[in-house]
Amino acid sequence: MRLRNKPWAMEYLQSHPEYVITNPDDIQSWKQHFGTDHPLHVEVGTGKGKFLKDMSEKYPNINFIGVEKYESVLVSGVEKAVESKPTNLAFIHADVNNLFDYFKENEIDQLYINFTDPWPKARHEKRRLTYKGFLSKYKKVLKNNGEIHFKTDNQGLFEYSIESMSSFGMILKNVSLDLHKSSWDDNVMTEYEEKFSKKNYRIYRLEAQFEKPSST
Amino acid sequence: MRLRNKPWAMEYLQSHPEYVITNPDDIQSWKQHFGTDHPLHVEVGTGKGKFLKDMSEKYPNINFIGVEKYESVLVSGVEKAVESKPTNLAFIHADVNNLFDYFKENEIDQLYINFTDPWPKARHEKRRLTYKGFLSKYKKVLKNNGEIHFKTDNQGLFEYSIESMSSFGMILKNVSLDLHKSSWDDNVMTEYEEKFSKKNYRIYRLEAQFEKPSST
Repeated sequence: MRLRNKPWAMEYLQSHPEYVITNPDDIQSWKQHFGTDHPLHVEVGTGKGKFLKDMSEKYPNINFIGVEKYESVLVSGVEKAVESKPTNLAFIHADVNNLFDYFKENEIDQLYINFTDPWPKARHEKRRLTYKGFLSKYKKVLKNNGEIHFKTDNQGLFEYSIESMSSFGMILKNVSLDLHKSSWDDNVMTEYEEKFSKKNYRIYRLEAQFEKPSST
Repeated sequence: MRLRNKPWAMEYLQSHPEYVITNPDDIQSWKQHFGTDHPLHVEVGTGKGKFLKDMSEKYPNINFIGVEKYESVLVSGVEKAVESKPTNLAFIHADVNNLFDYFKENEIDQLYINFTDPWPKARHEKRRLTYKGFLSKYKKVLKNNGEIHFKTDNQGLFEYSIESMSSFGMILKNVSLDLHKSSWDDNVMTEYEEKFSKKNYRIYRLEAQFEKPSST
């Protein structure tokens, strides 16, 4: 994603504490923040926030939180929220590495990784959001049997993520190697996905769990 | 693969016991059969045998065995062997379900599944060669850390296999979602693969292990 410098972004974020947390001290509990204890779904690297905004409208009984470190991108998500005034949507201005500052262990029900930076060079592996270092963080904050839903148009990142997740002992489900031609019709698209799907690029998707559901 | 009826096939197989085992009692040990104790690599559903013949020429210090239940297909592999007289290639005329009749536990170093029947209907899941029932058989006959190398052009079978293998606790490595456009240049093609790669179909490939190498 191209980053435009927006010198006013930080000030804008700080002026909307109802939708964006910029400091870990500003959040006591998500239950208190939302006023409900609905399930928590978190998107890491949430970008411009279209996916979460659409999800929050589609699923009013789930509380959605987007984590994004670039304020110039995050403002777009916060602007959307300020305009449509959802009660189940919030953003965190932070690096995904600092998830523990905002979430307790076993607090998150579901986690989304959508069209994240592929960091194709081998020496940047540790920056990929499906690197084992991140997976171990997600494992901590996710509930038992909590799921990660992962989408990308980047073939190399998808190949890498299958390897990284399976090597971490994760179970992969509902794998789709061409999402927009699949029979799955429950897809909510990101900005990026909408743009690229028109060009007929393949979208890859999978769901991953750290532990086997006790029912099977 | 289209099966042509070849009434002479069974007789032909039985007339070449140096290359094809048609009865479990005919094999005491693979070491005895080959006259060497080189590593054993086995292809299940070996079809017309081109892959194994090429592999046996490329890797003279590995003993290759193809398992195929359809005699009318298997004859093509045996004919190739009869003609080129390799000393490190053999075939088994048997159903993959009967692997235990021919192999001891922890005997096989590597296993290949190439362009196997996708059995796309849900009710036929148990026939897919990456179904958990087969995986548990492979696990027994494979050595610890032995690998399965799996290739297919069938997107649905590849998606299914990722799910089935990861659900079985396998570790997936060297995943390629477009093998012929990848940088991997060590590929030996099957008959089927040669035909379809000319049509620019995607070939999917992965390597899978049951246990983590003790070195990592």
